[in-house]
Amino acid sequence: MEMNRKQPDKNAPIGVFDSGVGGLTVAREIMRQMPNEKIIYFGDTARVPYGSKSQETITRYSEQIVRFLRTFQVKTIVVACNTASAYAMDTLEKHIDIPIIGVIRPGARVAVEVTRNGRIGVIATEATIASQMYTKYIKELNKDVTIYGKACPLFVPLVEEGLLQDPVTDEIARRYLTELIDIDIDTLILGCTHYPLIRSTLGRIVGEKVRLVNPAYETALELKEMLGRLDLLGDEPPGLGSNQYRFYVSDMAEKFVRFANSIIKYGILSAKAVNIEDY
Amino acid sequence: MEMNRKQPDKNAPIGVFDSGVGGLTVAREIMRQMPNEKIIYFGDTARVPYGSKSQETITRYSEQIVRFLRTFQVKTIVVACNTASAYAMDTLEKHIDIPIIGVIRPGARVAVEVTRNGRIGVIATEATIASQMYTKYIKELNKDVTIYGKACPLFVPLVEEGLLQDPVTDEIARRYLTELIDIDIDTLILGCTHYPLIRSTLGRIVGEKVRLVNPAYETALELKEMLGRLDLLGDEPPGLGSNQYRFYVSDMAEKFVRFANSIIKYGILSAKAVNIEDY
Repeated sequence: MEMNRKQPDKNAPIGVFDSGVGGLTVAREIMRQMPNEKIIYFGDTARVPYGSKSQETITRYSEQIVRFLRTFQVKTIVVACNTASAYAMDTLEKHIDIPIIGVIRPGARVAVEVTRNGRIGVIATEATIASQMYTKYIKELNKDVTIYGKACPLFVPLVEEGLLQDPVTDEIARRYLTELIDIDIDTLILGCTHYPLIRSTLGRIVGEKVRLVNPAYETALELKEMLGRLDLLGDEPPGLGSNQYRFYVSDMAEKFVRFANSIIKYGILSAKAVNIEDY
Repeated sequence: MEMNRKQPDKNAPIGVFDSGVGGLTVAREIMRQMPNEKIIYFGDTARVPYGSKSQETITRYSEQIVRFLRTFQVKTIVVACNTASAYAMDTLEKHIDIPIIGVIRPGARVAVEVTRNGRIGVIATEATIASQMYTKYIKELNKDVTIYGKACPLFVPLVEEGLLQDPVTDEIARRYLTELIDIDIDTLILGCTHYPLIRSTLGRIVGEKVRLVNPAYETALELKEMLGRLDLLGDEPPGLGSNQYRFYVSDMAEKFVRFANSIIKYGILSAKAVNIEDY
């Protein structure tokens, strides 16, 4: 595949997208691990959440977003949304001539590495769990591992409402996680980019013996490795006022900026709203 | 306005739309109160929820849906969504030559009629509260009434998750409603079409002295009065197998049917998915 690709500009930006704000946890890791890189971030805030939508719809939306990001001549695209990674990656990979990376494979790989008892839990949206993609990737790496998936549809609204440390979030988390604890998992994949934002709650409830895997972190690591291998790591330190990070959304730009500034400490100045249905 | 309209067919269907399943509480009231009427229902399940979106986006989505419903030669359109009623009614009314009715005016009117102490609470989505449309309509009817709005963004996800009778829903409802109880409202408008589904929880928390106003019920009453006045009430009793109620959604038709069957007892056989962005 890669050999026929026209080599992109190594100092072009990285395109990152998510259904909304969750993908900022991935963007944050890219900023931390690759301080030279420029990022174009798109959050589909008009059509969030993806987790309750069908494969067909999620694929159509993801294709529109990829067309939008490519107008910036991005050198690579990071699908920073588990649901879009689960449902749209196969289609996106077929029709694109730049490297593209999702969050599921990196999370699956690390979970297989860290489990000792071979019992891995995955928490995610309804759509991601229904897709069985974590199970598929993990089984490809080690067929003896057992995977327990649990859809947690209320986590995204609770995070969006800001109840990151709250007795209600504790109670809902206990309900969702009890069955995973009871079957003695030793590894838990946070299979939705919103979930790292309630990591401390989740960690407290599953206990110290369960290792939490954050695919956002692993994806940034894998992206760095891939860009290095393809000779696509940026080598220009960004200057002051260089617009290193640019944010686009499909709706509610101001609300996005407020949320984003609470997650990312690199000074998001603004986000611009675009009509994504036009792409 | 009405005098220049071409008179629609009185036995044509009524178009009803919502961002998702909430508008079914309005459709249910129309079915109960007007058993001769045919209904074309559209739920925008691909883009739900509307409550956190901007006026521009909600208006664009509503216009697409109106164009879709008009392909069925509907005789009238019911905007069975508070957020769309709050933000899109003015624009929709300007460009349409059939009668159109929203849920906010009927709810506002009844609230003004039933309040005794002139203190009315409104619970709704963030967008509906921000629009201040309940306040505007109520003040037009009685400027001495005081309106207290409270956005309750977690109610829709809790209802969609099926937690209609649950300690978590109780706890969230208590948090949202305490300030309204403390300022001694005697009337509470359920300003989102999902909320009648947790009516018993809400009633228990606000207590017997607070009258709950359900705009779904009032809208169906007002629709019946309007259709009668315009000589548009259907006069053909529907035959068996006549497809009296037809349901369309923008995504996840099967999930919609399951939910709809739990709300409406008139036998929903199926729902069809359409690509609403094409309209």
